[in-house]
Formats: sequence, structure tokens, C-alpha cells
Amino acid sequence: MSNALVAVMPGPGVDGRPRPCELRELPLPDLEPDSALLKVELSEVCGTDVHLRDGRLSGVPYPIIPGHVSVGTLERIRGTVHDVRGRPFAEGDRVTFLDVHRTCHACWYCLVARASTRCPHRKVYGITYGIADGLTGGWAEYIYLKPGVHCIRLHGVASELYMAGGCSLPTALHAVERGEVALADTVLVLGSGPVGLSTIGFSILRGAGRVLCIGAPDERLEHARCMGAEDVLNFTRHTPSDRIVWVLQHTEGRGTDVTIECTGAPAAVTEAMQYTRDAGRVVVVGQYTDHGDTSFNPHWDLNRKHLDVRGCWGSDYSHFHRAIEMLRTPRAAALWSGLKLERYTLSQVNEALAQVASGRTVKALVVPTT
Amino acid sequence: MSNALVAVMPGPGVDGRPRPCELRELPLPDLEPDSALLKVELSEVCGTDVHLRDGRLSGVPYPIIPGHVSVGTLERIRGTVHDVRGRPFAEGDRVTFLDVHRTCHACWYCLVARASTRCPHRKVYGITYGIADGLTGGWAEYIYLKPGVHCIRLHGVASELYMAGGCSLPTALHAVERGEVALADTVLVLGSGPVGLSTIGFSILRGAGRVLCIGAPDERLEHARCMGAEDVLNFTRHTPSDRIVWVLQHTEGRGTDVTIECTGAPAAVTEAMQYTRDAGRVVVVGQYTDHGDTSFNPHWDLNRKHLDVRGCWGSDYSHFHRAIEMLRTPRAAALWSGLKLERYTLSQVNEALAQVASGRTVKALVVPTT
Amino acid sequence: MSNALVAVMPGPGVDGRPRPCELRELPLPDLEPDSALLKVELSEVCGTDVHLRDGRLSGVPYPIIPGHVSVGTLERIRGTVHDVRGRPFAEGDRVTFLDVHRTCHACWYCLVARASTRCPHRKVYGITYGIADGLTGGWAEYIYLKPGVHCIRLHGVASELYMAGGCSLPTALHAVERGEVALADTVLVLGSGPVGLSTIGFSILRGAGRVLCIGAPDERLEHARCMGAEDVLNFTRHTPSDRIVWVLQHTEGRGTDVTIECTGAPAAVTEAMQYTRDAGRVVVVGQYTDHGDTSFNPHWDLNRKHLDVRGCWGSDYSHFHRAIEMLRTPRAAALWSGLKLERYTLSQVNEALAQVASGRTVKALVVPTT
Amino acid sequence: MSNALVAVMPGPGVDGRPRPCELRELPLPDLEPDSALLKVELSEVCGTDVHLRDGRLSGVPYPIIPGHVSVGTLERIRGTVHDVRGRPFAEGDRVTFLDVHRTCHACWYCLVARASTRCPHRKVYGITYGIADGLTGGWAEYIYLKPGVHCIRLHGVASELYMAGGCSLPTALHAVERGEVALADTVLVLGSGPVGLSTIGFSILRGAGRVLCIGAPDERLEHARCMGAEDVLNFTRHTPSDRIVWVLQHTEGRGTDVTIECTGAPAAVTEAMQYTRDAGRVVVVGQYTDHGDTSFNPHWDLNRKHLDVRGCWGSDYSHFHRAIEMLRTPRAAALWSGLKLERYTLSQVNEALAQVASGRTVKALVVPTT
Repeated sequence: MSNALVAVMPGPGVDGRPRPCELRELPLPDLEPDSALLKVELSEVCGTDVHLRDGRLSGVPYPIIPGHVSVGTLERIRGTVHDVRGRPFAEGDRVTFLDVHRTCHACWYCLVARASTRCPHRKVYGITYGIADGLTGGWAEYIYLKPGVHCIRLHGVASELYMAGGCSLPTALHAVERGEVALADTVLVLGSGPVGLSTIGFSILRGAGRVLCIGAPDERLEHARCMGAEDVLNFTRHTPSDRIVWVLQHTEGRGTDVTIECTGAPAAVTEAMQYTRDAGRVVVVGQYTDHGDTSFNPHWDLNRKHLDVRGCWGSDYSHFHRAIEMLRTPRAAALWSGLKLERYTLSQVNEALAQVASGRTVKALVVPTT
Repeated sequence: MSNALVAVMPGPGVDGRPRPCELRELPLPDLEPDSALLKVELSEVCGTDVHLRDGRLSGVPYPIIPGHVSVGTLERIRGTVHDVRGRPFAEGDRVTFLDVHRTCHACWYCLVARASTRCPHRKVYGITYGIADGLTGGWAEYIYLKPGVHCIRLHGVASELYMAGGCSLPTALHAVERGEVALADTVLVLGSGPVGLSTIGFSILRGAGRVLCIGAPDERLEHARCMGAEDVLNFTRHTPSDRIVWVLQHTEGRGTDVTIECTGAPAAVTEAMQYTRDAGRVVVVGQYTDHGDTSFNPHWDLNRKHLDVRGCWGSDYSHFHRAIEMLRTPRAAALWSGLKLERYTLSQVNEALAQVASGRTVKALVVPTT
Repeated sequence: MSNALVAVMPGPGVDGRPRPCELRELPLPDLEPDSALLKVELSEVCGTDVHLRDGRLSGVPYPIIPGHVSVGTLERIRGTVHDVRGRPFAEGDRVTFLDVHRTCHACWYCLVARASTRCPHRKVYGITYGIADGLTGGWAEYIYLKPGVHCIRLHGVASELYMAGGCSLPTALHAVERGEVALADTVLVLGSGPVGLSTIGFSILRGAGRVLCIGAPDERLEHARCMGAEDVLNFTRHTPSDRIVWVLQHTEGRGTDVTIECTGAPAAVTEAMQYTRDAGRVVVVGQYTDHGDTSFNPHWDLNRKHLDVRGCWGSDYSHFHRAIEMLRTPRAAALWSGLKLERYTLSQVNEALAQVASGRTVKALVVPTT
Repeated sequence: MSNALVAVMPGPGVDGRPRPCELRELPLPDLEPDSALLKVELSEVCGTDVHLRDGRLSGVPYPIIPGHVSVGTLERIRGTVHDVRGRPFAEGDRVTFLDVHRTCHACWYCLVARASTRCPHRKVYGITYGIADGLTGGWAEYIYLKPGVHCIRLHGVASELYMAGGCSLPTALHAVERGEVALADTVLVLGSGPVGLSTIGFSILRGAGRVLCIGAPDERLEHARCMGAEDVLNFTRHTPSDRIVWVLQHTEGRGTDVTIECTGAPAAVTEAMQYTRDAGRVVVVGQYTDHGDTSFNPHWDLNRKHLDVRGCWGSDYSHFHRAIEMLRTPRAAALWSGLKLERYTLSQVNEALAQVASGRTVKALVVPTT
């Protein structure tokens, strides 16, 4: 075996219209020192993959192999690859890895601002690495783990359980940390896609007294309940002013302590500010691509409310690490294990993209077979 | 003497148009237990007073006596009035006082959220107290300090020096605290009115490496320089995109670490987000009345920037206390002592309001004579 | 009925030896405006009560009626008593109340330091109020809720469930907040008395990945497991160096992220520092009385570890409020509902004190009958 | 020229007694890719160097070339060395550099705890690098800046001004950040050596209302005043209880808001706790070697005070960067420019060590000549 089967996303055509992914065979790499080859067991299709298909992200080196978070086994290691405890990995170990690579630890953002998710040198597997960089995405039989990639042991966490959250785990955990959810807080999650669902889960795990969710469609809202949401609202059937009334009814008339926006819709950011109580916190984690502007009233929605509005970009190693540590506990495993998974082969990724785009799927996994 | 001369603001007429303040005589109060009568030495005209004249604030019980921050001497005390150390004040003591009264310490905002500036029971001298509540504003010979008002000794701080900052001191100190200005940060202050100028001063005192100011007119910008701004820009002579270029040129291309909006213009809030570096902080303290909406791009201006945007409403006792403690140091006194003061009598308050509204004055004080 | 049966603690005798509590009848008070009479349903005997019996606290106005946290129904209200939402309580409502009274909101600690648990004016029911202040403790048929006491509705939380935690709930919640327990942290709780057990519970609820407990005796450690501790160690059967080895074995050799000391033994504070990983947090909440000194090495145990050691004194309203909000959730109720309760009448409080002092009881409640 | 003159510290002899440093010539290195050779202009002798001489630090690979913070010009660069903005350095540039090297950014402390100063892989020039690692200390004509060393431009900051602070700058700035000194706080600095003096300076720059210093001898205390201390106390002439009285007299009877221990004496840590007000902060930055234990009362000194005690270990790039940014401002330059500097050649380093050990010198610099 010297080739790997992969699904390649060509990016939009010259007419700007999305083009379908295609199966290709790419050669396995010669491993550099202290690198490894991962045999993919499961990858996923997330909302960012739909944006990638549609050309909504800048700086993407098409053609790419999508799939930024994956799980698999280390097929081959050259030299040594360590975990954060300094223990070497062995061939055969089941791992995932931090999709972010090449954070430089040498620039102003890394060293002075300590804002490593804004390091301009970082590269992300499946997004800002393309096939010119090798096997750098999870929709593939193999991924090349370049030197410096941080692998993480899954211990007893089943691959399926981990991928039920997948890339939403570090994103949601980061958002919940940034929201400083406190014991007994009421948390409102806007959006019921994978990030929204995981945000519900981590809010519960961090001690929210009550989690509410506004999203759609109904099936996803059912999953929101399973993840711990006490009450849910289908936004497609309620006007914005209805939604505010609903939130106030659930919060003794004050609004929520923390609102976490996971939708992708610009207007949801303004609504998040309006749903939140005075001196509360809004976390914006759903605006990963440019969907346009939104307007708000800085007197009523921000200054007079003494509100905190916090953008939340990217994840770092700690978010992956802590997410997996949590999944090792039965109370966390119970939350994500109820999510409905749909499996797609490499030949079916276009269909998977369509399903994810439509919101009809809860969680789409990729199994790297044909 | 049993009457006090006051300037009364009637509020807008039925046609919604501002009406001028008028001189009146009001009876001195019978002091309740543990209350006091303050003989006013100096009060001020601030931007909020212009908004009050124009009817831009809600919940104002016109007619009112404006002047929320003032300094004077305790003419008469009934019972005991203590400072925060528990020492009783004596008649003849020179003091200022926390203009916020009746924070309840019993509601959800006070006790659970610990957000006392959002306590719905608080009343503010000169703003939400009116003449029906007695002598409750500083444009007057006397102010009635009701039971529970927190008086603060001025120690050696000259009345003029204190009033050079006046109500902008606690507001600006609060904003700078909320911005968590760190040693060597570059801070951008939007606005060069009294709040902007004091924000420059406190940013310097808190260790900003460099403070920039965008404001107008030129005379105020000269004062911005005296308060410590390293460079200033007159926004009336530069387009928004020029302004961004100017900020980037002064920040090695990154944007500022902290931007503090003190303008009152909604668009300034969006610009503040754009002027600020990734993972920086924006404080919004200039939107004390509703001047309309602004729009922004939540992807580019917030989420991708991993930005913090923080509303900052009101002040509490600590802000007054710390501001006065700072003014006792020569390095702080040197900053505010250079501000140009203009004095107006009670008969001249309408003129003073016009001057403040126009931005032509730096700081307008009220001397309670005719 | 015009009298209330109470158990009075006389305090130590002239020889310094503890004296037993005695039953007495005290007259019911004439209610001041906006006060109430609480008919006690359940009170408790906690470790502080043992210290009170033994004269280990300063400033106690013996004789006192112990029992600082209690639950009951409002028998009589004069005027209005509000909850934090501003809704009036009605006679017959089942409530608990913040045992801390008269926090002044006017002193330097309240207003400048915002450290209200260090306000020198505060009084605590059952501890620093004595019978000279009226019916001010829970070992009684009735408690007089003076004007300004903050009552809290129990909603659907059963009185027994609430009192299973009792005064340990706000104390432990405060400690866990102060420890900033993060998702997936390993938390070590020292002590398995009521505060230790509740600290385990809130650590789990706040998202600890794993909680360990070192305490005694074995029966309490069994309850520690039920509250969520993954592993426990009986300190009476292991030397200090054994204990360190045990902690390191459970933490990949690093020590715990957060250690919360709930023991009362001075040496436990030094051990807490040694059990904790570099750059971790130690919370000291078990040193409510003076049990003597402890020594430590500031190079190895503190500076080189870049450690945070945080004293944690008292509680405020928010801790009671949030604790009750949490108990309304099934996942919190499940934790405390397993605690073994022992009931004592007013005639049996001396026996209860002996049991609590011995550590043989898990939780001792007081039923105000004979 | 192919050799560099250096002062080598052999470390203690087999009898444990300190041995003097000796002059040696070492070959200049062959530069690895992306490394540089720094021609030393100034280095320094700090308290840690005395501890190194005396063998008080563990893990030191004697013989070493001391001098961890230095300034000089880049004599030769192989490949590229960048600043944090990504701009390459040129030969002839005047720079200093972060003495900490090889922080791994791959271990649990770096990635999960984000406590990079506790990374076990870090090496420090002049301390944990020895001559076996090459020209790795500042008491030398040249220093080898290995690949990955972070150089920092000095811009217009004079070398003398920078070295007047030297290694105390990042240490003190870190301590002041960790103490969260707030506007108008009263800060007490224990110790008047270089770290103490710089801590006074940064406390002033961060907005302390008042800084006090307890130290010795009198000459250093004079410098403490020049750095901004409002009042000073020579601890050798006052008993511990006198010292407490003095602190209370200067703090309205409460104790200081923040106390920063920079002494090296274990007992000073306990005293720091006692000097600090309830709910204040203590930073321990003076215990860089093991000088033994200290004892304290965890009830009175910690728990009841609701105190924060924070160890502060090492520095990272940001502390150097921000310190230099501050020195570019006239108000910071004015503080450090008054410090009395004593210069020693490489032949005189033993004398310099003796002077520093005695406390008779304020700041000892090393000029790399004979």
C-alpha cells in the first residue's frame, strides 16, 4: 500500500459556484523525523466544511482534503511523538490530534498578548492546509501528522463518542469557559447545530442551573433537550419579539445570565445582547464566516446594560485535552452518547455536505471507505 | 436664611423642545435624622445635563435641579453622618458626595449579580431626583444630603482641582478599570470631552505605555495632549478609513490594546471595534442616551478578532473614593490641574449648557451665585 | 402562645470548660415594622456550634441560641418582607434566610474593597447574636427575623434536602467559586465533614473531571464517594508522605489542580500546598477558629510553585441563593439526598454536639420539639 | 578574534564552600542556523548570582558563566533572527534577550495549565546553562544566542537605563501584575534590593496611590524614596511588632491593599500576610532559594482575612517586552535613571558578588573588559 484514498474539495469554480468533492488517490508521505501517519477511523462533516465548499472562507488553499477533527490509530511513527506528559506514542495507539498546527510561540500575539488562537502563522488541518501540503485532512484513509502536531490519547473514550462531539467539543468548551458560566446561572444557547448542542452539554457540566435553547429544526431541538436544555424554542415559528418574551418568561423577567451565540446568523448577535440580563455575558462563537452586518443600539443593548460581549475564536490544545478528560466521566459521556450519528463514506461526502447544510442531520461522520 | 436659590430645569415642553432653566427659591428642608445640608461651593455642567435639557433621558422627574456632582461644606448635620472609616463628619467639613442614592442592597442585581450600578432602586441627584424630592441638585446654594448619602472628604484636594474632573472622574476611572489597562498597553480614547480627557488621565496613571485620542475640536485635543495623549486626531478632518490607517500606523499595524469610547455617537462603537487589535478590549462608556443604532460585522469586527466589548454603566462609591485618593498624589494632580475651567453663575446656566453642547468649552463649572 | 422553647448555650464557665446547653422559654417578640417570625422546621448542629460550646470563637455574646442556618415557615409578618425579586412574602411561606445580618454597605470594606464578608458590622444569627438580641438562633421553636433579614424561598426543595447541606452549602459553594474550579480539573478536598462533603458536590457540579478526598472516618468517606469523590483516603491510616504519594499517583505525578482545605487542622493548610500542582490553587476554608500555627517552606511550597493560596471567609446572599437554585436541579438533589441525617430534639442538643465533635455523625439536624 | 573572555563560576567546592570566579577564554561558537552572536555591552550581578556562588540553587550545571540579563549588539547573525513583529534583526542592532530558552510549548504546563514559567524544559542563560552549553552567560565578551532565543530591540532606551533595572524589571513587573495593583491602592514592598526597587517603580506606574517600603540599609531606602515610595522603614531598627504598628498607621488601621515580598527571608512571607488588609493580596517573589521554613496562623493570617497569597515564579517574554515599552516613556525612565550604578570588570566580579551579598551596593553592573 503506498496510496491513500481521499475526498478532495476543489473549492468554488470560476463562476463562484460550489463544485463537488471528488475521490482521489494520493501517495503516502515519506515521514519527516518525529512525524507520524494516522490511519483514520472516523472524521466528520461540520458547518465549516459547508462554508469551505461554498468558498466563504478566505485564505483556503484549494484543493483541500476537508475534515479537521478526526480519530484514528497511529500506523507508523518516525522518530518520537510525545504526549503532553512526555510519554512517547506507540504505533497502534488510538488518538486524535489538535487540528491547529504551527502556532509559532514567537510572535506578538503568542508572546505578548498570549492570544495564541490569533497567531498569524497557525495552520489548520482540513481548512488552511491543502493537498499541496500532503495528506492534511480527515476525509481520507490516512492523515500525515507533521512534526509538532499534538496528538492526544483517547484513553477509554470510544471513537464514536468522541466524534459525536468532534470539532464542536473544543469550540463549545472554549465558549463556555469564555462565558464564565457560574453555578446556577441560566444559560441561553442560540443554535442547535453541533456547536450549540455541545455548548448545552458543557454549560450543564459547568454548573448552569438551567439551559435554554433557541434553534431549529425540531429534531435538533429534541437533541438539545437530551443534552440538558430545560426548554427549547423553534425560532422559525416565533417572531423576534416572541422570542424575547419567551426568554423573559424563563428568567424572572431579567434575561439570561449568559447567552452563547452558535448560529452563524448576524442578527443572532444583536438578539443575544437583547436576551441577556444587565451585567451579563454574551459569547459570540457562531460567526466563523462573513454573513453580513447586523445593527444594534449601543445605548439600550450594551452600555446601559453594562454588558460583556465576547468574541471567541478558535481553540487551543487545552480545549481538546479538557474535552476528552470530561468525556472520560460517565456524566459527560451520557450527554453526548445520545446524539444521533449518520455515517457517510468518502463517496458520499457531497450528500453529507448537503445534509449538514440543510440542518436535517444532527451529526454527520465520515468513514474513510468507499 | 430659610430659602435656597436654585436653577431649575423644566424639561422639554409639550412640543418636545427644550426650555430654559429658571432661577427659583426653594425652602431649606427640615433635616431628617442622620442627614445634612451642604453649602455648595462648585457644581458643574456636563454632557448629561445637555441631554437632560433636551429630554433625551427617560424617567426624569422634571422639573429638576441639575448638577449631579458638586463640592461644598457641610452647613448643618442632624444626627450623625459617617465616612467609610466610621468617623463622623463635622459641620464645616469640605466634602463631595456619591450622587447615587438608595442603591438597595436587597435586590437580585445588588445581591446575586453584584452589579449595583444596575440596581433598579437607585436614584441620582440632579438626574432622577427632582424638586419634588427637595434640594437634590448642585445648581443651587444648598443641597439636601438625605440619610444614607455617602459623603467623601476631600482632604487636601482643592475644590477646583476636583471639579476640573467632576463627574467625569468616577466615570473614567470605572471605564479604565473595566478596560483592564495593563502596563505598556496602547490605549485609544474616542472623544475629547470631559470623560475622554479623564479617561486619558487615568489610562496614563494605570500604566498605559501610550494613549492616543481621536476627538474634536482642536482646543480639546490640546487638552488631550496635556492629559498625556501622545498623539491626537481631529475626527472632523479625517474619514473613517483615514482614522483606521492612523491607528494602525501608531500600533505597529495591529490596532490598540484597549479602546475606550467616550463620544455619544453610535458609529463610534463600531469604529472602536475596528480600531482595536485582535483579543483586545473595547469599553463603551459614551452611550448614556439613545442616539440610534449602529451596524457592524460580527465576523470581522468581533468573533474573528476574539474581541471583548464591554458596556460600562454608572459608578459606585469606590470610583469616587479612588479618584479622590489619586488626586491627592502630585502626579495625578498635575494632569487635571491644567484643564481650562469656565465658570458660570446660576443665572448663566443656559449659556453654559449651550457652550457644553457645542463642545467649545473644556469644562464648565457652576458657582452658586447670581 | 406567647413563648418559644429554645436551647440556650451558656458558653464556657469561669474555669474555661464547656457547659451544657439548657432548655428555656423566651417570650415571642413584638415585631418591628418589616420583620417576621419564623416557625422553625429544622435547624442543624455544625462544627462551628462545637467551637461555640468550647469557647473557641471570639466576640460571642453568651448566652446564645445556636443554629445559624435553619428552615421554617413564616408564622407572622409585620409590614412587608420582600425577596430579591421584590415580591412580598406571605405568612405560611416556607423559607430559609441569610444568617448574616446588618452588613452595613457603608464601610470601607463594603464599599471600597467590595469584601462584604469582612464588614465589621455584620452579625450572624446563632453566633454573634445572643439571647439579649432576642430569638436569634435556630435551636428554637421560633426565630425572630429582624428588619433587613434576607429570606429565601425554597421553591420545591424539600426542607430535609436543603438541611442535608445546611450551612455547608453556602460555605462550600463560596469555596468552589474561589477555587475557580475549571472543566476537567482534578480537585482534592481535605476533610469529609459537612463542608468537605458539600465541597465535593459543588466541585462535581462545576465540572471537575475528578474529585479526591482525604478525610476520616470511613463512614464519612463513604459519603464522600456518594457525593462524587472518585477515590478517598483515610488520613488516620496514612502518614503525610504516604498521602503525598497517593495524591501524585492520582494526578499523573503533578499534584491536584485545586485543593480545598475543609479540616480545621492547621497542618492541613501546609499539606494542601504540597498536594497541589505548580500554578494551581489552594482554598483555605476550614480554619474558622484558631487551632494554632503551621509552618511551611515558602520557596518550595509557594514561590517556586507559582501557587495561589486563598483564604475564604463567610458567605453572602449569593451563595445561599445559588445553592438553592442548584438544589432545584435533579443532578444536584441526587447528590445531597444520599446524606445520612440524624435528628435531635432541643433536649438532645448536647448529645448532638458530642456526636458532631466526634466526627461520628454525618449530618445532625435539630427538630425544635422536646 | 576567535575567543571570548569570560568570568567562570566554578560553584562550591567539595567542602561546600563558595569558590571564586575565574577569568577564562572560550572559543567563539560556530553559529547554528538562525542563531547569533551578541557582543556584550553590559551585564549585571544580581542576588541570584550570589546564591549561585554559594550553591543554593539546585540543578545548576557548574561551571557556568553567570549574568542572565545583558545588553549588547548583534555581532554576527547566521540565517534569520526575528523580533515578535516578524522583522529580522540586523548585525549591529542593539538588543537584550529573554534569558529563558527552550520553553517547550508542548508539555502539560505549557499547553494545559498555560503556566509556561513552570515548563520543566526551560533553560536559563547564566543559571541553568553552563559552559558545556557554550557562551551562555553575560559575564563575557560574547554570548551565543542559540536558535529560538527571543531578542528584543531597545529602541531609544539607553543600555545603562535598561540595566539599571536589569533582571529585576521582568521580575518586578510580573509581581506587580500578579498583585493586580489597582488605582489608588496602597502597596507595601518588603525589601529594597533591585527587585524591591523595581517593584516600587512599577507599582507607581500602575497607579498605586501610595507605596511603602520596609527594607535596609538606609542608602537603599533612599533609593526606594526616589523610586516613589512615600515612606520607608529600616527593618533592622524596628521589631516586628513595631513594623506592624507602622504599617497600620500608614493605612488608616487596615493594613495594605497589596504587599509584595522581595526579601528572601522566609519570615517576611508571614509578616507580609500580617501587614495586609483583609481581602487583600500578598505576592511572594523573594523566595527564589530555600532559606528555610516560616510559620503562620492559618486562622488569623489567612482564612479569617480572606487573603490571597500568590507565589510568583520566573518571567516570560511579555514581562521583558512590557518593561522595555515602559522605559521608553519619560515617566518610567525618570524613575530608574536615578539608581546608583557601580561598574565592575570581569576581573572584579568576585568583589561585585561580595558587594551585592552585603547589600551595600544598589546595582552592580558588569562591563566585559578586564
